[in-house]
Amino acid sequence: MPIITLTTDFGTRDGYVGAMKGVIARLAPEATVVDIAHDIPRGDIAHAAWVLATSTREFPYGSVHVVVVDPGVGGARPDVIVRGDGQWYVGPDNGVFTYVYDPRWDAWWIEDAAFRAPRVSKTFHGRDVFAVSAALIARGEDATRVGRSVKLAGTLPWGARTRGSGRIVHIDHYGNLISDLPPSEAGRSVTIAGQTLPIVGTYEDVAPGQLLAYVGSAATIEVAVRDGRADTRLGVTRGTPVVPAGASGPYR
Amino acid sequence: MPIITLTTDFGTRDGYVGAMKGVIARLAPEATVVDIAHDIPRGDIAHAAWVLATSTREFPYGSVHVVVVDPGVGGARPDVIVRGDGQWYVGPDNGVFTYVYDPRWDAWWIEDAAFRAPRVSKTFHGRDVFAVSAALIARGEDATRVGRSVKLAGTLPWGARTRGSGRIVHIDHYGNLISDLPPSEAGRSVTIAGQTLPIVGTYEDVAPGQLLAYVGSAATIEVAVRDGRADTRLGVTRGTPVVPAGASGPYR
Amino acid sequence: MPIITLTTDFGTRDGYVGAMKGVIARLAPEATVVDIAHDIPRGDIAHAAWVLATSTREFPYGSVHVVVVDPGVGGARPDVIVRGDGQWYVGPDNGVFTYVYDPRWDAWWIEDAAFRAPRVSKTFHGRDVFAVSAALIARGEDATRVGRSVKLAGTLPWGARTRGSGRIVHIDHYGNLISDLPPSEAGRSVTIAGQTLPIVGTYEDVAPGQLLAYVGSAATIEVAVRDGRADTRLGVTRGTPVVPAGASGPYR
Repeated sequence: MPIITLTTDFGTRDGYVGAMKGVIARLAPEATVVDIAHDIPRGDIAHAAWVLATSTREFPYGSVHVVVVDPGVGGARPDVIVRGDGQWYVGPDNGVFTYVYDPRWDAWWIEDAAFRAPRVSKTFHGRDVFAVSAALIARGEDATRVGRSVKLAGTLPWGARTRGSGRIVHIDHYGNLISDLPPSEAGRSVTIAGQTLPIVGTYEDVAPGQLLAYVGSAATIEVAVRDGRADTRLGVTRGTPVVPAGASGPYR
Repeated sequence: MPIITLTTDFGTRDGYVGAMKGVIARLAPEATVVDIAHDIPRGDIAHAAWVLATSTREFPYGSVHVVVVDPGVGGARPDVIVRGDGQWYVGPDNGVFTYVYDPRWDAWWIEDAAFRAPRVSKTFHGRDVFAVSAALIARGEDATRVGRSVKLAGTLPWGARTRGSGRIVHIDHYGNLISDLPPSEAGRSVTIAGQTLPIVGTYEDVAPGQLLAYVGSAATIEVAVRDGRADTRLGVTRGTPVVPAGASGPYR
Repeated sequence: MPIITLTTDFGTRDGYVGAMKGVIARLAPEATVVDIAHDIPRGDIAHAAWVLATSTREFPYGSVHVVVVDPGVGGARPDVIVRGDGQWYVGPDNGVFTYVYDPRWDAWWIEDAAFRAPRVSKTFHGRDVFAVSAALIARGEDATRVGRSVKLAGTLPWGARTRGSGRIVHIDHYGNLISDLPPSEAGRSVTIAGQTLPIVGTYEDVAPGQLLAYVGSAATIEVAVRDGRADTRLGVTRGTPVVPAGASGPYR
């Protein structure tokens, strides 16, 4: 039976995650449930999108990834099932799938009542829609007939990247700044927030407390402070440009 | 093999949860261990009771639910095993089972040494009593002879609800205020902390930053702030009355 | 298939833990992954070492324990596999194995490319080395030929304990102070930070808010405040001496 992963902003002090796990255990007892992250900042769709992109690609063919970062639950944004690259994704079409989604992939609105609980709470589709749908997919039910075929409409606050320039797209638990600038476009040093940093190998290549730029685990340029936090040091937020040193970049 | 769920206030930075999982893996290797929540506020029995009630009911028949929110560990409150509605519960009789327990259910003190570790730490019954008992239940051992049959004595700071009136019984991760007032007794609007709020469908039915009342995922009335926190906005704590608008309610 | 446990400082809001779980699910689909703790304070090797020691011993023979608290990742400290007491340990040789390691055990540097990902990020050996190695061990691959045989070199800020004296080696989630002083050397009361405390049985043996000393779940002397925090009350840090009352102890 496939894996079902969970990525939510439910935190780890309430019963919401447990309720989802109970539904899955009841409907797909052979599935393996894997916690990705439950402390996504509340309602932070862009944060969830990055977490999804950097973790779910590692999973085996046929895994089902559920995302519940869903401030608009019960409102206009549709509940969707997405299939691509051998993985299934289940969640709200609000932008959480931006970094993994390819418009050529298949996606469906969850309209079939069989893929929902008999009674659907307006504020907890995680339990009553997404967990049910994920369990049925894991069990091998045909999800391609769950509803109308759609293209995802959810977006993030920043648009597509322009070649030769990047921006901070994620700030992690350590305060490291993760950009979408690929090393092939970065040259030998990058500029962020007025600071120019040579690209080094790893943290120990600079002294404790020093800023550094390096190729991060997502194969993009990252900026960190050795044994410190780059987010507070530089006072930057997501969207901040990271450009090859000397380039001004199209993003201002 | 059945599921064993864990609900604790151990946090996720120490070895306590891991030690319990190790004991279970050793004694019941075929059992599936499911984390419900480990960030229950320290010693907050009422919080744990609500988390248990809103998550464990979703699990399949025969699941074993372990709760370790136990400020009185090693003291007077007994260790118990409870059976009802097709589920098993294991933990201290200190009130954590209030919302799931029915006095007609079976419950036993854990007196049999076979259901404990050979040496029992006075401060870690989670590892030395509850994990052992849960593993043995999951393995199919007869838990009905573990000790004397009892009625649970643990209680919460608030008593039973009076018809036509409710109180805040839980404040969740988002600052949402969850009451025990059923929609059938709420009418079309409710009063809390001097504010009267119409009952709407979901968050998007009000503007960002606005207070709203709605039927929550526990099928009771909840109060929230869209994209905000109702607990800090209203400055209320658990026990605060939530009554149908116009009613004064018996709870003052 | 064996168990693979995870102990990290990755937190629960990023994709790092999920990426490791994905690698393991792909390479060792039959292994059971168990979360020990992901909120180890950032880069706190001594904290991780204690968590490991107090949890992994409970696991069944053949379990594989992965630790990723690794501020020097990509730098000089080697990646290692350690085998002893029927358990496998995988992580950086930076001190995290101090409390479980016996110099008579086998340990190897991870040099074989088969025990790493095809491309190894310089900042995420958790995903690209440790998860891969753990999965291969769980699958039964021969880890004894992974690289040269070594003695671990990592150490903690404090050295070995002197008989008749102890120090605080861990401060837990509750603010309890855990020492390495065994009860057999503690006598009937201990002195810490100028306070002399009789050794009692459990929290309820003192009034709420009172300091107490007792034999903790690691079978060493602990100091706590009933329903409070001993760390802030006493203002102590790890390394602080805990000695039998009347003894001055060799640690000053």
